[in-house]
Amino acid sequence: MSTQPEEHTMKHHKRPFAAYQAKTFLWQVSADGKVGTVTLNRPERKNPLTFDSYAELRDLFRSLVYATDIKVVVVTGAGGNFCSGGDVHEIIGPLTKMSMPELLDFTRMTGDLVKAMRACPQPIVAAVDGVCAGAGAMVALASDMRLGTPAARTAFLFTRVGLAGADMGACTLLPRMIGQGRASELLYTGRAMTAEEGASWGFFNALHESGALADAAQTLAAQLAAGPTFAHGVTKKLLHQEWNMGVDEAIEAEAEAQAICMQTRDFHRAYEAFVAKQKPVFQGD
Amino acid sequence: MSTQPEEHTMKHHKRPFAAYQAKTFLWQVSADGKVGTVTLNRPERKNPLTFDSYAELRDLFRSLVYATDIKVVVVTGAGGNFCSGGDVHEIIGPLTKMSMPELLDFTRMTGDLVKAMRACPQPIVAAVDGVCAGAGAMVALASDMRLGTPAARTAFLFTRVGLAGADMGACTLLPRMIGQGRASELLYTGRAMTAEEGASWGFFNALHESGALADAAQTLAAQLAAGPTFAHGVTKKLLHQEWNMGVDEAIEAEAEAQAICMQTRDFHRAYEAFVAKQKPVFQGD
Amino acid sequence: MSTQPEEHTMKHHKRPFAAYQAKTFLWQVSADGKVGTVTLNRPERKNPLTFDSYAELRDLFRSLVYATDIKVVVVTGAGGNFCSGGDVHEIIGPLTKMSMPELLDFTRMTGDLVKAMRACPQPIVAAVDGVCAGAGAMVALASDMRLGTPAARTAFLFTRVGLAGADMGACTLLPRMIGQGRASELLYTGRAMTAEEGASWGFFNALHESGALADAAQTLAAQLAAGPTFAHGVTKKLLHQEWNMGVDEAIEAEAEAQAICMQTRDFHRAYEAFVAKQKPVFQGD
Repeated sequence: MSTQPEEHTMKHHKRPFAAYQAKTFLWQVSADGKVGTVTLNRPERKNPLTFDSYAELRDLFRSLVYATDIKVVVVTGAGGNFCSGGDVHEIIGPLTKMSMPELLDFTRMTGDLVKAMRACPQPIVAAVDGVCAGAGAMVALASDMRLGTPAARTAFLFTRVGLAGADMGACTLLPRMIGQGRASELLYTGRAMTAEEGASWGFFNALHESGALADAAQTLAAQLAAGPTFAHGVTKKLLHQEWNMGVDEAIEAEAEAQAICMQTRDFHRAYEAFVAKQKPVFQGD
Repeated sequence: MSTQPEEHTMKHHKRPFAAYQAKTFLWQVSADGKVGTVTLNRPERKNPLTFDSYAELRDLFRSLVYATDIKVVVVTGAGGNFCSGGDVHEIIGPLTKMSMPELLDFTRMTGDLVKAMRACPQPIVAAVDGVCAGAGAMVALASDMRLGTPAARTAFLFTRVGLAGADMGACTLLPRMIGQGRASELLYTGRAMTAEEGASWGFFNALHESGALADAAQTLAAQLAAGPTFAHGVTKKLLHQEWNMGVDEAIEAEAEAQAICMQTRDFHRAYEAFVAKQKPVFQGD
Repeated sequence: MSTQPEEHTMKHHKRPFAAYQAKTFLWQVSADGKVGTVTLNRPERKNPLTFDSYAELRDLFRSLVYATDIKVVVVTGAGGNFCSGGDVHEIIGPLTKMSMPELLDFTRMTGDLVKAMRACPQPIVAAVDGVCAGAGAMVALASDMRLGTPAARTAFLFTRVGLAGADMGACTLLPRMIGQGRASELLYTGRAMTAEEGASWGFFNALHESGALADAAQTLAAQLAAGPTFAHGVTKKLLHQEWNMGVDEAIEAEAEAQAICMQTRDFHRAYEAFVAKQKPVFQGD
């Protein structure tokens, strides 16, 4: 990822990620520079992931921790599908020939993608149409919110290729999203969750027609980007850190986090706007 | 809270909380002395919380740990709304002028209210109509059960005032109540959850028409108060303590807790009633 | 459980569990030897549990850890009901006369049944018709998946006999299955969850008519048994171990677990079948 802006660069440029040139997917930044969109873009094969695209996605999300411009990320796929997961020929074939240390390098890299998605301060919106399978389903699951279409079919199909449902954090993330019993069924059987099930069970936040999906995702992203984005990053951090905290410890963590947010300018802007009977304009600081 | 009964007092009086005189909300005790009802009562402003009412609520729930009379608490609001959260003029304005230690004093006090609600042995039933926003939504969320009306609009709207969704434990409590994805949307966007969504997602245990809400809450509370209330306190304690336990550790904790309950008179009363083909009359000991 | 195969025996016999003679319930093994079915079989009293059947069930599930033949377990009840829980005369009566150490022996034994169900590598499918109450509801809850009928009535009714809802892990398992608020209501009130609620809330994976339930459970079990059963055991282990892990730790645990699965023959079989455009035939190794 040689074109990736480094941390010290970010201090001098206002929008380093607007210039980012992705190699293995499309990267587009909104006109105001705040929303970055990842489009998995091998539509003829339903946008599978490869060793290279896994690594580049991981590096991108790791770099976004230091971004000064991008406030929200949208992840989607080209051509009516989200992502078909790890490519059978380019990934599964080579994996069958690897030693244990090589296999661990791979499974840790894929896990690191999810870790990076959860660790960056930007809320991530997945826009899911059509096939959403395997590692693709995990990318959707690792996002903060998910918009789908009636055609979205989400399958944690690891079991279909002889593997465990335990992949990239599925056994911890999916039960918290849709409930332990439903998650168990999907992980043991590998069957596809329909869009209707996904909406009813809380996997999808909303369904939109295919033609309206991209706009809906950008609208939601723009709304989030217009919010108090420093505070959004705190929300995301706490949602992550409280995963296995006790209630009392979580409350204490939030007391400290929210006190920090109360010293931001955005909090003051909101109060001043309220007093002036205006709508606050947040700046993310 | 000078009128609050102290612990040593409770040992000598049968119903210390029947005499409690609340300053910043209404406190009413049922005829049998078992159900205490908190009514937030500034209906002209949709029952906002103030520094004083936060503190008094916290102190009340802390005192209830030692109550010998009150077995169940109902929390509700006057005038068709539950609670509009922290008052903009009386809370948010002053917060914008505070130092970090002062801010922490505030966020810890609000967090302590939730901790106290989770730590008292009495099940808490929230009866929610109309506006249920910010800290008000957190009071509802921190209750054990929630009854709503079709007009209930519940908004974790911290983000709307420039703050994080991480407030008073929201990032740990809300995901466990309605699922991680739905909770994320509500906390990032601050949008109101409709009553229908709340019922469908498991936030509300049931919806009742506005005119029937108070009776429904008192009926449920009376049913709980007629149950084995010592055992209810054990249920509440374990639901709290198991939040971040492993399954095996939780099972062991319950083995000890239930063995204690098997030595209560209520357990014996239930068995004797069953043998006599009668309905057990529980006494809470 | 004298007829129970011991570990060293399992290494010499191919299907030790096909020969297992259960004393307190029915034990039947499918023609291919892969699916074992427990049928609680005292239909005239709705299949209550006794001290002996608790212990035998616990021992069976503990032994299944070492099974070389059984890949999936089905648990069901005879005569149109699942299980009415601990027998009032044979269990509750004696409990009222026990000392604390004896009570703990009992509550730990019942908890050990749940621990054993969660610790064995076989996915467990509960087939639930009619009454499913108390410890019976816990056996269903401790299973990996649950199929019900419209007549299924599931009640965590411990509170009705003067006890806490904290029994056999209910306070940790039920909230993760159906949400914290719904679980709280069921555990505090002891009321029965209808089959429709159970399906809507994620307790049941599907509902079938009573006459079709046994076939549906066997079909699902056979499908799981035809899958990569070593990997299923890994899925089950990780679903259990990640209960109170952080997200990052869970991802690392899955990286290791999945790398192990990538060295199984089943993973290679899946790849080879894909390349040959065939359906993989998994062997569980």
